[in-house]
Amino acid sequence: YGTFEEETMLVFNSPTLFFFLISENVKSKRFTRKFTFRFICLFATFFITAWLFRRSTFLAAVPVSRSHDQDYDAFRESRGLHDVDIASTDFSHIEKAETNPEMRDFLSWRLVDHPEDTDKRAKTLTRNEDIVEEAQRILVNLLQDLLGKAKHVMLIEIATYENKGDPAITVGEVMLLRRMNISIVFYCKSSICKNNTYVDKAVELNKNYGKDELVIVMQGGGNMVGYVYFDNIRKVYIEKFPDRKIVVFSQSIWLNKNNKADLEYCRHVYSNRSNVVLFMRDRQSLEIAKTNFKGTTLILAPDMAFGIGMVPRQMPPSYDIVWLKRVDYESSRYALPAFPSNLSVDVRDWGHWKSNDGQTDMEKSFLVATNGFQFLQRGRIVITDRLHGHILSTLMNIPHVLIDNAPHLKLSSFDKSWTTSLRNTIFVTNGTLALDAARELLKRYHNSLPSVGPTDMYVVPRI
Amino acid sequence: YGTFEEETMLVFNSPTLFFFLISENVKSKRFTRKFTFRFICLFATFFITAWLFRRSTFLAAVPVSRSHDQDYDAFRESRGLHDVDIASTDFSHIEKAETNPEMRDFLSWRLVDHPEDTDKRAKTLTRNEDIVEEAQRILVNLLQDLLGKAKHVMLIEIATYENKGDPAITVGEVMLLRRMNISIVFYCKSSICKNNTYVDKAVELNKNYGKDELVIVMQGGGNMVGYVYFDNIRKVYIEKFPDRKIVVFSQSIWLNKNNKADLEYCRHVYSNRSNVVLFMRDRQSLEIAKTNFKGTTLILAPDMAFGIGMVPRQMPPSYDIVWLKRVDYESSRYALPAFPSNLSVDVRDWGHWKSNDGQTDMEKSFLVATNGFQFLQRGRIVITDRLHGHILSTLMNIPHVLIDNAPHLKLSSFDKSWTTSLRNTIFVTNGTLALDAARELLKRYHNSLPSVGPTDMYVVPRI
Repeated sequence: YGTFEEETMLVFNSPTLFFFLISENVKSKRFTRKFTFRFICLFATFFITAWLFRRSTFLAAVPVSRSHDQDYDAFRESRGLHDVDIASTDFSHIEKAETNPEMRDFLSWRLVDHPEDTDKRAKTLTRNEDIVEEAQRILVNLLQDLLGKAKHVMLIEIATYENKGDPAITVGEVMLLRRMNISIVFYCKSSICKNNTYVDKAVELNKNYGKDELVIVMQGGGNMVGYVYFDNIRKVYIEKFPDRKIVVFSQSIWLNKNNKADLEYCRHVYSNRSNVVLFMRDRQSLEIAKTNFKGTTLILAPDMAFGIGMVPRQMPPSYDIVWLKRVDYESSRYALPAFPSNLSVDVRDWGHWKSNDGQTDMEKSFLVATNGFQFLQRGRIVITDRLHGHILSTLMNIPHVLIDNAPHLKLSSFDKSWTTSLRNTIFVTNGTLALDAARELLKRYHNSLPSVGPTDMYVVPRI
Repeated sequence: YGTFEEETMLVFNSPTLFFFLISENVKSKRFTRKFTFRFICLFATFFITAWLFRRSTFLAAVPVSRSHDQDYDAFRESRGLHDVDIASTDFSHIEKAETNPEMRDFLSWRLVDHPEDTDKRAKTLTRNEDIVEEAQRILVNLLQDLLGKAKHVMLIEIATYENKGDPAITVGEVMLLRRMNISIVFYCKSSICKNNTYVDKAVELNKNYGKDELVIVMQGGGNMVGYVYFDNIRKVYIEKFPDRKIVVFSQSIWLNKNNKADLEYCRHVYSNRSNVVLFMRDRQSLEIAKTNFKGTTLILAPDMAFGIGMVPRQMPPSYDIVWLKRVDYESSRYALPAFPSNLSVDVRDWGHWKSNDGQTDMEKSFLVATNGFQFLQRGRIVITDRLHGHILSTLMNIPHVLIDNAPHLKLSSFDKSWTTSLRNTIFVTNGTLALDAARELLKRYHNSLPSVGPTDMYVVPRI
C-alpha cells in the first residue's frame, strides 16, 4: 500500500489543491463561472486519479521491472512467466499482507532456530499460490542461514529417470538455488554419483573452496531408508567430506517390516554427524529420524519441487480425469471403480510416459519434470496416489483427489504439514471414494475448469 | 472504452454532483467549513474514482466471466489460460480499437467476397498477440460464411506423425471449430483415411445429414502438389462427395522441377469443382493455384495453427538458442557457422523429438503439437528454417530468426502476407547471417527474455 498512499498524498498536495485554490480565487465572479471552475477541478482530479491509479496498478503488476520492452514484459506478466524467471528471494510482501499477529511473529523467525515448527503457517493456507510461496519462503529462510557466506554448492544426485517426481525435485532445487544466486559447481546423476571418477572429481574440486565457501547439498525425495541404493550414495559423500557442511534436501523415510537391516545401516550413516543437516519432509519421517538419527540436526521442511513455482497449462485437457496410479510396490493396491460412460478417464502410471534426451543430464531432469506437467494437464482434474501427482497438480492449480497409500501414509503425513487446508483437493482412502470426490470436484469447478479440448473425439465412432 | 465512459458519466452524474451540491448549499458558513466540505467532496470523488477504476480494470481483464470461483478465475486469467479455454468468436473489440479508417472498413468486410485481400491488415501488425488474433478473426470470418448453417463437419486427415507443424495445424483446426461450436463427426489420421472402411464409414455418416447440415473440411499444410500422397487422399473424398461443400484448409503448393506430372494430376483433382473451396496459405501458392486450378474457389487464408492461440512457456530455457534445422529435402542446405563459446546452442530437427501415445489419434495430435512447444521453449530464442518453427515461436512470443528455404521460398512467401511486420523476428538467407541476427535478438531482448534456467550446468566440468 506504500505506493498507493504516496500517490494519495501527491494528489491532495499538488494538482488538486492547485485547482482548488484557483476556484477559491474567483469567488467574486458569477455562479456559473465558479461552477465551471469547480467542475474543471473535479474533472482534473478524476483524470489525475485515474491516471495515477492505472500507473500504480501497472507497477504493482510487474514486481521487478527489468525490461527495455514494456509490451513484451506485460505479455510475460500476463502469461505468469515471472514464475519461471524473475529471481527474487524477497518475501517481505507476505509479512506485509499477513494480518494474524501470531503469524506475523512466525514470519519474523529464523527457522533454523525452530526446526520442528516450520509448518505453522503452511497448514493454514487455502490457495495454491500461497502454499507454493510459503514453501519457497521456508526453504529460502532455512538455506540462507545454512549456506551462510557460501555461494557455491555441489549437488549430489540429480534425477534423470522417468519417475517424474524426482526430476521435479531436482528442478525445484536448481531453480531455488538459482534464485539465491548460488552456483552449482558439481553435480552427478543418481546412477553415476558413486563412480570413482565422480567422487574423485568432487574431492579435487572441494580443495578449491575455503571452509565457508562451499556447501554440499543432496537431492531430496522419498528414498531414505527404504531405498538403500540412495542411502549408499549419500554415505559415500558423507564419509568423504566430514568437514564440509552437508544439507540433505527434504526426504521422507520409507519404512516397512522388511527395512530393519536398512534402518540399522542408516543409523550408522546419519547419526552423530555434526556437519550434516537433514530436511525431513513430514512429521512421521521426522519422528523416525529423531528416534534413530541422534546427534544430527533435523529440520521439518517442505518438498523441494515447490521451488519450481506455479506452472501454467499449455494445452486444453483431453480427459475429464487423469488418474495417475502408481504400479510399484509403494501402491496401496486399491481397486479401480467402474467409470460412468459420460466421463472420460485416462488411467496409468507415468513411468512409461517417455521424455526426450537433452545434451546434458541436467537438461534431462528438466525435460522429465516438464513431461510430468504435460502428463497431468491432459486432465480437467487429477486423481492420484503419487505424492508428486499431488504436488505438481498443486503447482498447476489443477483440482485433484489424493488417495492415501496405506499403510505407509506418506501422502497423508505430508499433507498434514504442507497442504492440509488446500481448498481444491480432496483426500480419500480408496478408488470408489476417489471417483465420487472427483465428480464432486468436476461439479464444483465446472465453470472455471477448461473444457475437454477435442471434446468431439468422443462422438467419433471407433471403427 | 465503453465501460470507462459509462463510469465517467456515473461519477459526474451522481455522487460527485451530490457532494458538489452539498458544498454549494453551505456557502453562507465560514470559510473553513466550506473548505472541509469541498475537501470531503474531492476526497469522495477520488475514492469513488479509484474504486470504479479498479473495478473496471478487473472487469476488463476477465472478458468472459463464467466462474463461481473468482479467485480461481483470476488465477487462470493471470496464467493466460483463457487462450486455451474461453470459446469466443466475437472479435468486435478489434474493430473498436482500430483507429485507421481504411482498416476499420476492412474489418467490416465479409472476407469470402474479397478472397485475395484477406491479408490487408495482418501484414501491418507488429505484436504477436495481434497477429494471432487477426489470423483467427480471418478464419472465423471465412468459415462462418462457408459453413453457413452447418453445425457438423467431417475432418479429412488429422496429423499424428512427429513433424510438429502438421499436428499443430490439426490442433488449430480443432480448437477453432470448437470455438465456433462445430462438431467433428468423423476424422481419420492421414495414414488410414484412404482405407475402404473409413471411406465407407464417411459415406454412411454423410447420409445422416441434410444438404446444409454438414461440410467436409480437409487438413491444411504444405503438402499440395509436391506430396502426391496427400493429394491422393483429398482426391478420394472430393470424388466421393461431389455434392457436399468441401473446404480444404490453408495449404501451400510445393512445386519444383520434378513436380510436372504431379501438377498435371492435381489440375485434374482440383479444377472445376464448384463445391470445393481451397484456402491458399501464401500468394506464391495462390498464383500457382489460379493458373492451374480454374473453376474452383480460391481464398488467401492464414495457417490453421494460429487457431491454437497464444501459448505460455512452462519451463525456463536450457539454451540461448534452439536451432530447429530441417533435414528433409525441403531444406536449403545452408552451412552451420561456428558458435562462440559463450553461447549455448542446440541444433537439431524435431522429427526425432518423440511424443507419447494417447488413447486416440486425436489425443496424439495434441501431444505431438504440445511437444513442439516443449522443443522450442528450450531456447531463449529460436533460429529456424521451418515454417512452423516460425509460427509456433510466434504463438509463444519467442523472438526468432527465420532462414528462407530458397529456392522454394515457402517461408518468405508466407511471411509477406501474415507476419512481415512482426517485430521480434528477423528474416535472413543463410546460417552465418542467422547467427548474427540471433545475437542481435539476444542483445535486444536480453532483459525481457527468461534467463537460461540451469545456467550452472555449463560450468560443471564434463567428466
